[in-house]
Amino acid sequence: MEIAIHGGCGTLAPELLPAAEWEEVRAHLAQSLRAGWAILAAGGPAVDAVQAAVVVLEDSPHFNAGYGAALTHEAEHELDASIMEGTQGRAGAVCTVRRVRNPILAARAVMEHSGCVLLSAEAADRYAQAQGLAMVDNTYFTTPRRVKALADIQAGKAGGAIRPITEADRHGTVGAVARDARGGLAAATSTGGFNDKPQGRVGDSPIIGAGTFARDGVCAVSCTGMGELFIRHAVAYDLCARMEYGGQSLPQAGDHLVHQTMSGHGIGAGLVSLGADGTVHAPFNTRGMARGWITGEGRICVATHEEVFDVGHC
Amino acid sequence: MEIAIHGGCGTLAPELLPAAEWEEVRAHLAQSLRAGWAILAAGGPAVDAVQAAVVVLEDSPHFNAGYGAALTHEAEHELDASIMEGTQGRAGAVCTVRRVRNPILAARAVMEHSGCVLLSAEAADRYAQAQGLAMVDNTYFTTPRRVKALADIQAGKAGGAIRPITEADRHGTVGAVARDARGGLAAATSTGGFNDKPQGRVGDSPIIGAGTFARDGVCAVSCTGMGELFIRHAVAYDLCARMEYGGQSLPQAGDHLVHQTMSGHGIGAGLVSLGADGTVHAPFNTRGMARGWITGEGRICVATHEEVFDVGHC
Repeated sequence: MEIAIHGGCGTLAPELLPAAEWEEVRAHLAQSLRAGWAILAAGGPAVDAVQAAVVVLEDSPHFNAGYGAALTHEAEHELDASIMEGTQGRAGAVCTVRRVRNPILAARAVMEHSGCVLLSAEAADRYAQAQGLAMVDNTYFTTPRRVKALADIQAGKAGGAIRPITEADRHGTVGAVARDARGGLAAATSTGGFNDKPQGRVGDSPIIGAGTFARDGVCAVSCTGMGELFIRHAVAYDLCARMEYGGQSLPQAGDHLVHQTMSGHGIGAGLVSLGADGTVHAPFNTRGMARGWITGEGRICVATHEEVFDVGHC
Repeated sequence: MEIAIHGGCGTLAPELLPAAEWEEVRAHLAQSLRAGWAILAAGGPAVDAVQAAVVVLEDSPHFNAGYGAALTHEAEHELDASIMEGTQGRAGAVCTVRRVRNPILAARAVMEHSGCVLLSAEAADRYAQAQGLAMVDNTYFTTPRRVKALADIQAGKAGGAIRPITEADRHGTVGAVARDARGGLAAATSTGGFNDKPQGRVGDSPIIGAGTFARDGVCAVSCTGMGELFIRHAVAYDLCARMEYGGQSLPQAGDHLVHQTMSGHGIGAGLVSLGADGTVHAPFNTRGMARGWITGEGRICVATHEEVFDVGHC
């Protein structure tokens, strides 16, 4: 059994946040891992584990998903999420939702009950509500950090000096991959997109094959970075195809996609991936990527930049 | 230079429409091919050709895209479309739009001007409007045939006898692939989804890598069939990956996906594909699939079922 998570590539430089805050980020990563691991340890399926791990990250203000999500150009929140289990290849996703508290739970409901894979916008929120999920006002997702980031960007534009969207502005998509005791793989991804994004914009996170993919016997993967490029390169499925048809190893395939394909476009990118043999690989080409994993020995490892912290045993 | 199009798999049985109507279907397919070919013959890019071909099919009442689109469960129209050019791998798409007259033009505008790949719902319509595209009332898309189909399905359900969605109900997604004089490939897909679909449902047509994909030197492909399965199998990109990494030929890859992968799930499916060498391949596992192509010799070929009609020279 293994679980690995990410909290987005392009994390802020270490000196830009107080040490106590980085500590809290790591604590929330560890909490997410423990939530997923508890399910795996009890013999539960990987898809339940990745869902539980992502819910913790959605509820944390430190990540750009659920509570703490980025703001659109019109200072609102539009959220995307997807989930896939690799045994039957079932999947569910929602895009540009505004009211469901945990978009990953809406994605799961779509997968389990709708007969669809992807529901969009207000209809997706209505579906989540009809499924009995917790609903919130759009302002629930707002945190001071995102308000300030949006104000900074828009003030820069208004002043004629267009402040480019930095990697840190894109920071924080969350995701998880897991392998359960029966060898079942699953992946899940959730995001608020990026600060000042156009209303209606959908990134790779809700797109099966772009931001999320899982296939038993091959791999599970969740991506983070500029979603447009991940869609155009079908990155999540490409990882699987490179292994399945191209004979590449999980690290070879992931490193190529992050350090060649995405770096070649000059964009920040990262992913967490898990092979059918339990290999965890989490490449990124930015200064940092919030991430963590628990592998066979049961050690909880978390990191935001280079240094990896062993924060205890499950 | 080559162009190939489809008007959806799962066409009605020949005896269910008068001969004159089948003739009109074939005439509209030929008109679509001529529109795309005119651009290729003038030295234009493949992406312009597939766009022009799809516009003709969107404007025809015989296909489930644009005018003549399927109706949702709430008797409205929600349309999906995407377009991709294979030289730089740029792409654009819209999902669940309700007001832009030609969704493929909205997808193209997203690709060219938005910096995004996919825009959703009302924001996508607003973007199309701001780009100066023709907008219509949602009722513009309604045709008597779709009203009757929805009434039949809903009456069946109300009577307690749930009438299953047949292949014919799913009939009519449209798409095009082309290769221009410089060897550039492109693909485009547009759909109204299926009759009685849930509001907000997004199929594979607006998903790059699922319903549409193009990469110079490999292939261009547009898919038709039950979109959920195409998303879960990343069919459009998988065709490319099977060729690029697996060494399969275009027909091998397409036949496997349609006749093994999709048939294995018991669903109707089809696609049109075009190789970098100009090979056209249009497999389907249903009784019919509206389709057509023009290859090097300039003959216009169209078909709805087994028989292929040569309808003249460009």
